[in-house]
Amino acid sequence: MKKEIKIGLLGLGNIGTGTYKALELNRAHIEETLGAALQIKHILEKDVTRDRGIAIDPALFTQDPATIFDDPTIDVVIELLGGIEPATSFMVSAMKAGKHVVTANKAALAANLELLTNTAAENDVKLRYEASVGGGIPLIGAITESLNANVFSELLGILNGTTNYILSKMSDEGRAYDEVLKEAQEKGFAEADPTADVEGHDVANKLSILMSLVFGKRVLPDDIPTTGISAITKDDIAEADSQGCVIKLLASAYRTPDGQIECFVQPTWLNKTHPLAGVRNEFNALFLKGNAVDDLMFYGKGAGPFPTASAVLGDVIAIARG
Amino acid sequence: MKKEIKIGLLGLGNIGTGTYKALELNRAHIEETLGAALQIKHILEKDVTRDRGIAIDPALFTQDPATIFDDPTIDVVIELLGGIEPATSFMVSAMKAGKHVVTANKAALAANLELLTNTAAENDVKLRYEASVGGGIPLIGAITESLNANVFSELLGILNGTTNYILSKMSDEGRAYDEVLKEAQEKGFAEADPTADVEGHDVANKLSILMSLVFGKRVLPDDIPTTGISAITKDDIAEADSQGCVIKLLASAYRTPDGQIECFVQPTWLNKTHPLAGVRNEFNALFLKGNAVDDLMFYGKGAGPFPTASAVLGDVIAIARG
Repeated sequence: MKKEIKIGLLGLGNIGTGTYKALELNRAHIEETLGAALQIKHILEKDVTRDRGIAIDPALFTQDPATIFDDPTIDVVIELLGGIEPATSFMVSAMKAGKHVVTANKAALAANLELLTNTAAENDVKLRYEASVGGGIPLIGAITESLNANVFSELLGILNGTTNYILSKMSDEGRAYDEVLKEAQEKGFAEADPTADVEGHDVANKLSILMSLVFGKRVLPDDIPTTGISAITKDDIAEADSQGCVIKLLASAYRTPDGQIECFVQPTWLNKTHPLAGVRNEFNALFLKGNAVDDLMFYGKGAGPFPTASAVLGDVIAIARG
Repeated sequence: MKKEIKIGLLGLGNIGTGTYKALELNRAHIEETLGAALQIKHILEKDVTRDRGIAIDPALFTQDPATIFDDPTIDVVIELLGGIEPATSFMVSAMKAGKHVVTANKAALAANLELLTNTAAENDVKLRYEASVGGGIPLIGAITESLNANVFSELLGILNGTTNYILSKMSDEGRAYDEVLKEAQEKGFAEADPTADVEGHDVANKLSILMSLVFGKRVLPDDIPTTGISAITKDDIAEADSQGCVIKLLASAYRTPDGQIECFVQPTWLNKTHPLAGVRNEFNALFLKGNAVDDLMFYGKGAGPFPTASAVLGDVIAIARG
């Protein structure tokens, strides 16, 4: 293994900054575990002056992605721009230049999974994306490695922290959707334009990725029947509660008796005894049923700079190891 | 990668039989995923005649472990004998003969972790043991791979299905310890001699393994302060319930303010809102807190032939791939 792994970072927004900070915080632990140093050599970012609460050498910044792709010393490119383009094109360019790629970008993966995985294979580089679904929860590694001996029959996920926060507050405090959404926006748990979250599009991107990994079936996000939570009322929540249930925005997929695989995103009644029913506020969880392992659940923080950084840096370490 | 991976299986009890059956059940899926065939070539087992509910070629059986260690075509040895010896010596012999080893044996690992990991390193072979803690739950892969960028501060585990079944029944049905233990023995959830489970020794073995992986600290099982559940009364459960708590047998470890790491196994009051409080009956779960990922929980079946087989075969696939 190389003594020093050089990294090109695409994007220094909240997630990029969190990744930079988490690497600084745990550098000694990571480098001891790995037996190699990690160096962020270039950062593609326009906003050089923003106060990110951490000192970053201005010489690291570039506004030209070719600085990264054409640098033969760069081993790994971390893509944290978000959005389908230019992120997809940048990842393809990086892999064609022989760089491994780590990304947290569910939209780009859901839209272009074949292109990205084929490009990785053709150029004999790794493409890893643990952070793209469930943030810091190590579920993609588990599905693609430890659980490989299973044929799966069912998948249920709470995969969006914003909507789970809103539904939890409506349920726990008996409040209305609009009021809780406004509070979530004020607290930074929901974006000014919450459409992608509350209408379920973010979850559909994540379910699209999971469909490929869990069931080996490619379904584009636009082909997943998707209903969000914006029409859920206080009365809906109260009615579910009176029947011993909670309402959760679930990504669901299952194998039908005739071998088809159905999937959808919709608000769903869950019995309060179900393992997913207690997943509250900004937490995410994935429930899986495999024919050897039986019922499994993974639970943790599905978003946020540090949990996402945990997954991104875990992928970088896995690449560096081997 | 080789076209066919040849396996020597040590032990064809309940777990060995489950592993054999799970491989047969999912062979097509596993071999397609892997791009190679898996062949069990020899089985070390004295009981050739027992009805295991599956046809096994009698020519596979051997009563001489050297048949496996001296066979140059064997790539992987799966150790499912249980107990510290002769399992440890057999694993050492297999690794010295250049075979990778997969084991579910928490007692041998907890007692001899340095010997086993050093032998693997010296002979340039892999030693994998996902099944040894938490059965089918993919937590060792997660801790040693995806979560590598974290420094952990806390670990709480429900790691024994027998005791969790007994405590769940006592709690849900208001029954006494002796009565529920007897029922668990009749149903096969508890052994005729339940000491290792109910007195916490099984959990101490698993916590010993986790201490090395999560905190990098070696603690022998006998050095872990351990209290079981045999003294828990109906009144204890009722008192906890009246305070909004349940009693769980927890493996606990945490980092103290001065940087020490404490660990113990004992019945513990858990607030009913804690993610571990809802883990019922034979299910296991591990709660971890990392300084990047924050709170995480893994939940699933911690024992049983098929869940254990899921982890064992996942390890075999990982070795075959890499």
